[in-house]
This record gives sequence, C-alpha cells and structure tokens, in this order.
Amino acid sequence: MNNTWEEEIQNFLNSNFGFRTEKIDLYKEALTHSSSGLLNNQRLAFLGDAVLKLIIREHYFTELPDWTKGRLTSHKCDLIETDENYAKIASNLNIFEHIKLGGTYNNHRDDANNTTVNAEAFEAIFGAIYLDKGFVETKKIVERLNRKIPFL
Amino acid sequence: MNNTWEEEIQNFLNSNFGFRTEKIDLYKEALTHSSSGLLNNQRLAFLGDAVLKLIIREHYFTELPDWTKGRLTSHKCDLIETDENYAKIASNLNIFEHIKLGGTYNNHRDDANNTTVNAEAFEAIFGAIYLDKGFVETKKIVERLNRKIPFL
Repeated sequence: MNNTWEEEIQNFLNSNFGFRTEKIDLYKEALTHSSSGLLNNQRLAFLGDAVLKLIIREHYFTELPDWTKGRLTSHKCDLIETDENYAKIASNLNIFEHIKLGGTYNNHRDDANNTTVNAEAFEAIFGAIYLDKGFVETKKIVERLNRKIPFL
Repeated sequence: MNNTWEEEIQNFLNSNFGFRTEKIDLYKEALTHSSSGLLNNQRLAFLGDAVLKLIIREHYFTELPDWTKGRLTSHKCDLIETDENYAKIASNLNIFEHIKLGGTYNNHRDDANNTTVNAEAFEAIFGAIYLDKGFVETKKIVERLNRKIPFL
C-alpha cells in the first residue's frame, strides 16, 4: 500500500510538475492530513504559504510596474492568496485523491474534500517542492502551473 | 548631493551587509519615503515583506522541528514579523539617517523617525537585496544580520 502511494505521488508530481523526486517523504508528509497523526502536512503548509506569497508578490511586482502597493495588495494578492483559490487549483490537480486521511475523516472521504483540506495540501506541496528543489526552481514550477491552470 | 547619497548608501550596505551594489537605483528607491514622490519604497516594501516572511518561517521550520504550525505561528512568527520588530532593527542599523523624505516630513525629520517609516524602509531594503542578489544570498544576509543583531 505504501509503495503504491509512493508511486502514485511520483506520477502525480511527474504529470503535473514535470519531475520525479528523490525526497518522497517530503511529499508523503505534504499529503498527510492532520487527522492521520502527528506527522502531518501542517508545518509544510506553514512554509508553503510563505513560498507562494513571495512568488505571487514578485509575479505582480514585475507584471504591474505602475501599480501602487495598495492596489497590488487589495486588487491582486488579497484575492489570489486565499484558501478558496488554492483549493480550486488543488481540485483541478485532483490533489485530494492522493491525500492520506485518518479516523472518521477516512470513513467519510467525500465530506473531507473541502476547501481547507485542499488548500492546506496545496500549500504543503509547495512547501515540499521548495525544500526539494529550492526557490528558483519552485518559482519556475509555479509559473508553468499558471500557464496550464491560470490562477494569477 | 545625489552622488553623496549614493556613496552613503554604498557605505551603509558595505558596513552592514558586506557588499557594494551595482544596482544603486534599487536602494535609492528602498530609501525613498512616500512623502518624497511617486517613485518611493512602498512597492519594494510589499516585496520585501514577503521575502522576510519566507526567510523567517524557514528559519523556525528548521530550528524547531518539533513545534506545531500553530505554535510556530503564534509564539514565533506573529511576534517577529511586526513593524515594531523591523523598526527596532532598522534603528540599530541607523537606516533612518539615509532615508529621503519630502515636504513637511523633511522639515521635521525627527518627527518622521517613527515605527512605520523605519519598518517600511527595512522591508524595502530586503526587497531591493532580493532583486539585486537573489533569494539564496538574501537568506545568508538575513542570517548574518541575525548573528550581529539578534532578532530571530
């Protein structure tokens, strides 16, 4: 089962982001919901949230050189860096079907397929990609993802 | 006057961060308060805020492997990533004396030496360093600064 999950994650990474990883444990952690135990995706989501924030801010900083800080914040970033938006991309990538849930969550998987669970997994995956590939490569992966599933 | 300011900024960067820059305009922008005109440090502060957030989060993510997301957020990051804290470091670095102010601000420089003006300049300088040196080098500069003026 574990080997199957690992292979499933490798395929997920390869088909969505164009790479296979040598640090599979990072992605298993990123895809483990907090219902499943103490080693879950919360810490990676904490990191990934900041990774995405910097990439998104730099994207708009560069793309919109005439916009003020206030406009960039309220008309762009505040609308993009939301659980709803991240969950929408997660849903497009079918992230939820790879998430490991525990206890009652696992007995009612459909109910657990909500905005928070999806958004956290999305942030956590980008925390994992950042630790695996570094910042510059992660930025390229986000920009490629944005060409495939426009979200910026 | 402009040459003097440029030389002053180069000396500031060299003595505090150990480098001189070939992109002086970035740092002039980072040190220009919004009272001084449309090209000011607000946009760089918007970027630098996210640069610092990621560096600080990764620092604690790595240093405190057993801490939960909630504890990392409320007992560390929420206390570190504040205007007050950034202004304190800015004050330690005497950033304010290099800031270009406009109009009444410039006529009452002492009154303008407040938390917001200092914190914005601090964030903006790290926005400039990031664009000048890239993420990995900026992270090293923050860690070096933290050994000199502990703030993490």
